Amino acid sequence: MIGNGVVGILAETSNKWERRAPLTPSHCARLLIAGKHKSGVDRIIVQPSTKRIFSDSQYEDAGCVVSDDLSECGLILGIKKPKLEMVLPNRAYGFFSHTHKAQPENMPLLDKILAERVSLFDYELVEGNRGKKRLIAFGKFAGRAAMIDLLKGLGHRYLNLGYSTPFLTLGAAYMYSSLAAAKSAVISVGEEIAEEGLPSGICPLVFVFTGSGNGSVAAQEIFKLLPHTFVDPGGLAELFEKAKETSRTSKRVFQVYGCVVTCEHMVEHKDITKAFDKDDYYAHPENYNPIFHERIAPYASVIVNCIYWERQFPRLLSTQQLQDLAKKGCPLVGISDLTCDMGGSIEIINQCTTIDSPFFRYDPINDSYHHNMEGNGVICSVVDNLPTEFAKEASQHFGGLLSQFIGDLVSAADITQLPANLRRACIAHEGTLTPLYEYISSMRNSGMK
Amino acid sequence: MIGNGVVGILAETSNKWERRAPLTPSHCARLLIAGKHKSGVDRIIVQPSTKRIFSDSQYEDAGCVVSDDLSECGLILGIKKPKLEMVLPNRAYGFFSHTHKAQPENMPLLDKILAERVSLFDYELVEGNRGKKRLIAFGKFAGRAAMIDLLKGLGHRYLNLGYSTPFLTLGAAYMYSSLAAAKSAVISVGEEIAEEGLPSGICPLVFVFTGSGNGSVAAQEIFKLLPHTFVDPGGLAELFEKAKETSRTSKRVFQVYGCVVTCEHMVEHKDITKAFDKDDYYAHPENYNPIFHERIAPYASVIVNCIYWERQFPRLLSTQQLQDLAKKGCPLVGISDLTCDMGGSIEIINQCTTIDSPFFRYDPINDSYHHNMEGNGVICSVVDNLPTEFAKEASQHFGGLLSQFIGDLVSAADITQLPANLRRACIAHEGTLTPLYEYISSMRNSGMK
Repeated sequence: MIGNGVVGILAETSNKWERRAPLTPSHCARLLIAGKHKSGVDRIIVQPSTKRIFSDSQYEDAGCVVSDDLSECGLILGIKKPKLEMVLPNRAYGFFSHTHKAQPENMPLLDKILAERVSLFDYELVEGNRGKKRLIAFGKFAGRAAMIDLLKGLGHRYLNLGYSTPFLTLGAAYMYSSLAAAKSAVISVGEEIAEEGLPSGICPLVFVFTGSGNGSVAAQEIFKLLPHTFVDPGGLAELFEKAKETSRTSKRVFQVYGCVVTCEHMVEHKDITKAFDKDDYYAHPENYNPIFHERIAPYASVIVNCIYWERQFPRLLSTQQLQDLAKKGCPLVGISDLTCDMGGSIEIINQCTTIDSPFFRYDPINDSYHHNMEGNGVICSVVDNLPTEFAKEASQHFGGLLSQFIGDLVSAADITQLPANLRRACIAHEGTLTPLYEYISSMRNSGMK
Repeated sequence: MIGNGVVGILAETSNKWERRAPLTPSHCARLLIAGKHKSGVDRIIVQPSTKRIFSDSQYEDAGCVVSDDLSECGLILGIKKPKLEMVLPNRAYGFFSHTHKAQPENMPLLDKILAERVSLFDYELVEGNRGKKRLIAFGKFAGRAAMIDLLKGLGHRYLNLGYSTPFLTLGAAYMYSSLAAAKSAVISVGEEIAEEGLPSGICPLVFVFTGSGNGSVAAQEIFKLLPHTFVDPGGLAELFEKAKETSRTSKRVFQVYGCVVTCEHMVEHKDITKAFDKDDYYAHPENYNPIFHERIAPYASVIVNCIYWERQFPRLLSTQQLQDLAKKGCPLVGISDLTCDMGGSIEIINQCTTIDSPFFRYDPINDSYHHNMEGNGVICSVVDNLPTEFAKEASQHFGGLLSQFIGDLVSAADITQLPANLRRACIAHEGTLTPLYEYISSMRNSGMK
């Protein structure tokens, strides 16, 4: 069955907001028109879904068959994991399985996959042959959606604090028919700020971005649509001094401020005579003290957190540090944590939020969590499926990347015929754990997470 | 002090969403530039507000003075009632006081007004000299905002029912920088429906509008931006028969349906040989049986309720009728009740909702109320301050109307100098109830609401 050229596309069932597809109707049309001898794809069978961002009719128009029955498919593709009963024996599957760290919640699925002699390719593990760059991913859509949702949240939060701001005229990312429409709305907000200004009582409004990866860059891409100035981390104190002076003469501020912070602004060596050395920090984090709470956080209205962090590193912001800042008075109103690390680099983050209800409010004075916008504290967004807010474009991006690998995946009757990077992304091969991923078994056996 | 040509504009304090102003900076500029001899307005003092949709700076640029102190103003204007301590003695005030039906929650305000010898003009009571048409009102903004918010809610509700629809790409009315931007977004939704269609499982999607006043017309104005066909109330059964046939051949439906219902489709004479006579119905409602639940409601996906109703009339839809419909299976998913009558023409409506959280969900099977979108039942929106979602344009509309009366209000030292329609809108005159409104006292004394 594996290698028969027939592709199945699953109906997504993991989450009500999951509207993405691994291949769009256009991708399907291209693969089918090229034909089996060129693309390797003979037929595509799509499970019907009223929730997918592309309708069943669009797949039919593209030449796919719409059917619940995927039994003829040698390769079955989804975004998120299928229901257990959808795992058919002796097929190849591709999806984000979240199994390669032996995540306990997904071990029943892995057991099923082994029992059914399935070959499982995990998109997350498809990397380039040199370096570790992932080749099939949702790119910048998480950061873009996060930033738009955060700006909308700021509008609400400031209204609750008694301030009308142009941010209130924004919707969440999913409320726009395209990324272009969403950006256009942010640009309108920016024009309003440039023309009418923001109330000086909430200014200078500083957005702090931590990290320099895809998430941070994409969040900044949206931020830059507003009238803005980037400030060096070392220049924040001066910015606030100047703002004090100008607020005497002008009641409105016509721009926002950005500040990109990397690890050299988060920690310093305990021996302060030493210049910062990133390699040394990664090798000996115990020799470093956190400084973000003293040098950056006191000036931040907003923190967009995108850093890679592990427990051996000092936290970006501990609960105690945030409580101390709040007692002294600080402008912090909102956090968007793209890392979704529970109790991680920002210690107060203890829960994920949802696209429906993207914020919780943490009150540092009373150390309490709330699900409304009224009252003291900081609103926090921690959504772990952001790219589905841009379901159409995220699918287009993803399917374009995936299409490059379809030919190999759909026609190889055996894993040994595959290129090396796809072999490395294979978690199970005909029901056996691959050598590279046998450590999943060992992790499970050792009871590690 | 009254009649001194100095106008005060209050900072609104009634509700966090209240961002409207009785006069925009442009209106103020026009009045001030015309000068006291022409417009009657000598100076305008505006209380500072960080929440008003127009900034303090914009009023300053228009020639107003921004100050908390309104003591020099003979005429003080707001949208909603001021705080009691803002009621200064011997001034004229204009705002929506909600006192003329002796509303108990506003009687402390009326007491204060009488005690301070204030003259109170209530915008709601300014009518034309012929007929009863109100002259200073927010017009169609409630209906427009209601319809946009409802369409957004439908997107969420259908997603929870497993359907992806273009409605999900809409924001609430306040999330757009202008009515034009909001309409443009609805048009985009319409284009998506026309191109890609709606899933047949939720079609034919029928929007029922009750009543023919401003609210209904404005809701229809937004509805008409979608690809639509209006159906006569008598044609609904046939529409559903036809839809059954076509759903066999086509999986998508490329339009929505509207149905405008007035009282002749809501009731019929107990003697069914008699033709409907509106005057007879109003005079003898006890002779009429409700028919909306049999002839209209079984086909409605959405009800936008805008009818005038009093207790002697049959209800549009009783709780029992809705429960019976739900048991039989009916397509109803959403209600927007612009009347905000508690337990009124739609009996299940027992609470107002807010701009933040515009829907409750009523489950007719379990007769229970919920504040989420997941589960059985009908989502209901009952927001009583909708026009503030379009704060800028609603203020422009309102201030334009109010400006026509400013000259008289600001320069008349005594009520007897005013035109008759303004005299009739005066609830208190120098601290005494006016003859026309002495019934407020009698209602209070009799303990009536």
